Amino acid sequence: MTRARPGPYTLDSLVEVAAQAFLQRGYDATSMEDLSRAAGITKSSFYHHVSGKEALLRGALDRALGGLFGVLAEPAATEGRPVDRLRHIVRRQVEVLATELPYVTLLLRLRGNTETERWALGRRREFDQAIAGLVREAADDGSVPADVDPVVAARLLSGTVNSLIEWYRPGRVDVPALVDAVERQVFEGLLR
Amino acid sequence: MTRARPGPYTLDSLVEVAAQAFLQRGYDATSMEDLSRAAGITKSSFYHHVSGKEALLRGALDRALGGLFGVLAEPAATEGRPVDRLRHIVRRQVEVLATELPYVTLLLRLRGNTETERWALGRRREFDQAIAGLVREAADDGSVPADVDPVVAARLLSGTVNSLIEWYRPGRVDVPALVDAVERQVFEGLLR
Repeated sequence: MTRARPGPYTLDSLVEVAAQAFLQRGYDATSMEDLSRAAGITKSSFYHHVSGKEALLRGALDRALGGLFGVLAEPAATEGRPVDRLRHIVRRQVEVLATELPYVTLLLRLRGNTETERWALGRRREFDQAIAGLVREAADDGSVPADVDPVVAARLLSGTVNSLIEWYRPGRVDVPALVDAVERQVFEGLLR
Repeated sequence: MTRARPGPYTLDSLVEVAAQAFLQRGYDATSMEDLSRAAGITKSSFYHHVSGKEALLRGALDRALGGLFGVLAEPAATEGRPVDRLRHIVRRQVEVLATELPYVTLLLRLRGNTETERWALGRRREFDQAIAGLVREAADDGSVPADVDPVVAARLLSGTVNSLIEWYRPGRVDVPALVDAVERQVFEGLLR
């Protein structure tokens, strides 16, 4: 919570401040007072912009989910062979994760304690199911090794992409190099 | 914390009860009272076995770290080409993770708030560095794709294996099938 720049404030910039705070202290432990201090504005001006903490959490999760579902809607994700669609989705999913890191991290760490969290977990499950459906189609096409259960393959795929939040930090690795490395891992393996 | 079987109690069985409780409620939120209730013994008999909560956490983390470092010491992990050693380590690491799931999960979720946690995080870093060193050697041998930074490859490798804790549950997938699937992903890719 180092950010304390002068206004004007937009909803987006307050969501950004809130996401950082939620990640650092946890959602439950963060008060509106903490958030207004981190944003460098008074609590009452904060309430001019948002109704409360849950609205900020929803805004942050919306950014993550908007990015991910946006990828699923792209032409290259909806047309062509399942394996090619998956290649596009994996690459773009890594990009979204890297560029929207705090929001995706919040999404992946949710435990489902509030209505907003349960809503976001439901959307996340929908996303995972879309990927799992495509992996199953790819398996029907022979694009998944015959001895690997497509359900396990889908879990491994999501797990691999999502595990980036544990170590990736902006600037440490070029985003295009990261995208290429994950594509290599998924489509050719990391070692041989 | 459903377990409440009659004695006799061993340190191992109390560590098992404690690990489940720490995962369910968090280490800080778990009291010795909670633990003795979960074990089905009185608090004073509990203290006959262990000095306190931190000793139980240490016991649980020791099981995870013992398993992982045990793998690194196996002959197939210490002799031969780096890529073959890595193949053995990845397979055995998945096995340890699947069979010692609660302990490895505790280890991977540590935040470093107590001395015991910091000790375990240090050991975990040593393990990751051993893997990263082997991946670098494998890259020197030409076993890592030339356009993938070995540091990134090592992170992806650890991330992939560790991400199993997010979804793998005993009985859901056969351990040997899981081991094979992860090996496939790392050495040949999941999709083609």
